[in-house]
Amino acid sequence: MSTLKGNAVVAQSGGPTAVINSSACGVIEETLRQREVIGNLYGANNGILGIVQEDLFDLGAESADAIALLRATPASAIGSCRFKLGDLGKDHANYDRVLAVFAAHNIRYFFYIGGNDSMDTADKVNRLATQQGYELRVMGIAKTIDNDLKGTDHCPGYGSVAKYLATCVMEAGRDTEAMYTVDPITITEAMGRTTGWIAAATGLAKRAPGEAPNLIYVPEITFDMDRFVADVLDVHRRLGRCFVVVSEGVKNAAGKYISDLAKADPAKTKKDMFGHQQLGGGASYLAEVVMAKTDLKARYNKLDTCQRNAIHFASKTDSDEAYRSGQEAVRQALAGTTGQMVNLVRVSQRPYRCEPGLVELSEVANGVHALPREFMDDAGTGITDAMRDYAGPLIQGEVPIRIAPDGLPVFTRLQRKPIARRLPAFAGKHA
Amino acid sequence: MSTLKGNAVVAQSGGPTAVINSSACGVIEETLRQREVIGNLYGANNGILGIVQEDLFDLGAESADAIALLRATPASAIGSCRFKLGDLGKDHANYDRVLAVFAAHNIRYFFYIGGNDSMDTADKVNRLATQQGYELRVMGIAKTIDNDLKGTDHCPGYGSVAKYLATCVMEAGRDTEAMYTVDPITITEAMGRTTGWIAAATGLAKRAPGEAPNLIYVPEITFDMDRFVADVLDVHRRLGRCFVVVSEGVKNAAGKYISDLAKADPAKTKKDMFGHQQLGGGASYLAEVVMAKTDLKARYNKLDTCQRNAIHFASKTDSDEAYRSGQEAVRQALAGTTGQMVNLVRVSQRPYRCEPGLVELSEVANGVHALPREFMDDAGTGITDAMRDYAGPLIQGEVPIRIAPDGLPVFTRLQRKPIARRLPAFAGKHA
Repeated sequence: MSTLKGNAVVAQSGGPTAVINSSACGVIEETLRQREVIGNLYGANNGILGIVQEDLFDLGAESADAIALLRATPASAIGSCRFKLGDLGKDHANYDRVLAVFAAHNIRYFFYIGGNDSMDTADKVNRLATQQGYELRVMGIAKTIDNDLKGTDHCPGYGSVAKYLATCVMEAGRDTEAMYTVDPITITEAMGRTTGWIAAATGLAKRAPGEAPNLIYVPEITFDMDRFVADVLDVHRRLGRCFVVVSEGVKNAAGKYISDLAKADPAKTKKDMFGHQQLGGGASYLAEVVMAKTDLKARYNKLDTCQRNAIHFASKTDSDEAYRSGQEAVRQALAGTTGQMVNLVRVSQRPYRCEPGLVELSEVANGVHALPREFMDDAGTGITDAMRDYAGPLIQGEVPIRIAPDGLPVFTRLQRKPIARRLPAFAGKHA
Repeated sequence: MSTLKGNAVVAQSGGPTAVINSSACGVIEETLRQREVIGNLYGANNGILGIVQEDLFDLGAESADAIALLRATPASAIGSCRFKLGDLGKDHANYDRVLAVFAAHNIRYFFYIGGNDSMDTADKVNRLATQQGYELRVMGIAKTIDNDLKGTDHCPGYGSVAKYLATCVMEAGRDTEAMYTVDPITITEAMGRTTGWIAAATGLAKRAPGEAPNLIYVPEITFDMDRFVADVLDVHRRLGRCFVVVSEGVKNAAGKYISDLAKADPAKTKKDMFGHQQLGGGASYLAEVVMAKTDLKARYNKLDTCQRNAIHFASKTDSDEAYRSGQEAVRQALAGTTGQMVNLVRVSQRPYRCEPGLVELSEVANGVHALPREFMDDAGTGITDAMRDYAGPLIQGEVPIRIAPDGLPVFTRLQRKPIARRLPAFAGKHA
């Protein structure tokens, strides 16, 4: 494979995680070590949008410290989006624009850190480049707290949300134990639009019978409201309290999200650009149901975006794997690989060891890796040892963060030195 | 002052904090050093309820390690409640019962860790003992995340929730920065039933213009819905995003909680045993209002009980002050003090230094220490340097926690060896 000289661009997409910047750091630090091949490294403002809009900035102009601090900075420092290019056969304008921007800046390496929608975008860009004879190497780097990507043992981002949310459940669970005479029922909402990986991970918090969480509800198992109320009453009868974790994506037998059951007016429910339903409010509704159908008071916790950005108690294992995935993407691209996503392969369970591997972008693009049924117990409301074995190693260690003299964390703040535009503004649809 | 020999009881009351167990640890460790005077130390299960119900356990039977680990364990390990004894003149049965239980177990020292309702209870018990000639020393130890107690510079529990929630706002703020093209508006709900101390503390997260939080709403300043929407639109116009923190206790000019505006049926709103309204749902409602009145998508975070139990990122300054308050209560009681609460006196600002002092329980009992208007800026939506100077020192350092091999924190689990009852079961109202 011949050496391909040119510039590189890195972009982040979709919902942030605590460690997506660690992947970016891996890409950036590895790229900057390879400057005899990769001349310049650009960041694309707001994911693929930044490419379509030729909105690039020079990552080579950032200080080494600002780059290193990405490993202790949550969310997407390069910028993110939920913009998805259309079908390759139909959405010509956007795809042509991407390649035009790449050509204008002699970009030969495209690193895209994201979930399955992003892997779909990366795959299409790669195929178009091949069709059009534009020499380009496209590498995907897995990112999603949801842990729902196919073709990988797990996803960078998952271990950190798992560790943090399990810890929050341990802590709030102690609150419910202490306050059971007043507030016996607590319902915590976990993210997870289509899968229950995050909700299930909170089960790691339960080291002994009776400890929180007492009940976990995941989207892979049909939610039944009467059964839920009966479950809560049963736990309350035994313990005098009940701590529930419910995934935001839980649906009833009719396929309705429980959060939607709460809404009188479905027109209120906005959708995001991919047509995904904007969720949330499930825990709030379940707390209302408990109070309406029993004589028990219920309250709810909804950590929402706080859960996916909690670098202050993130998994070091996760962060290191995120970094290594970014680094490996650069090494693979330089070695001639394209159209692949760096995945994680569990080569050993005891001791736990994961190695980066490769999977076709197209394989990851539009599938969903659901929580296996055997990771939940027969009742469907607790986790099994299989889940503990799977998720346990992913939450090991804590990410070291920097604390400022004011007592709060220090996050990086990139300068974002803009790259001069070489093309006319793009008039296509992308907003 | 003569030495008063006898047993002691310690109880916790009200909503838990990350460091209320640190105060308990201070009481316990100091008491166990004084066993030639204080023979036995009992924990009262569920605050004053445990005394009325003669539900006591032997803290002397716990291991030294289990006691020490209280400093790294959130919520109320001894148990809590929101039970309040009635008026001294009217609720004879309960008060007489308290003294009967004390006499039955030769309890001469009563340490009550709680907020203003608890100080009221402690004060009444103290006065009754004096009236009836039962020699008793009653000491209050301040506890409340709300920071709303009179007669003290600040309250143990506040620094930890301040540090944690400010950190969460920093983190989730980075998410809003990254995702502004999709989710431009984020609303985070802070606890604080009557005061804005917690919401205001999140202002510490903002180190530079434009950083989260962009807008803070506190109960001390009347909430106007039109003004709120205009504020959000204004910030969004300037930054392309807006991160809001709203206190759960915010009210409009008519004195209505915003969370109540959301509720079609006010009968749904349950009250706790003190007649306090059960709050929550304000941020959810404001997100709906933003989406209804603008074309912007809004989401919300409600950390609820997670915020007050976050020992995993709690303030060491706060934890140490909590411990010292407990320790000082024991020392003062042994020296003959009764009817007082240990407060915190800021003796120096630079360097920050706080010393424990004393304040009459009756002075603390029914007052509320509101956030001073000058701690908020002219617009009423940001904090001033006065607030930074006040709260900044309270969030210094992190509480060291113990992490188990499974990657999650280790919390103490008391054995709770029960003390045999010496009285018939109490038939009075207390449930």
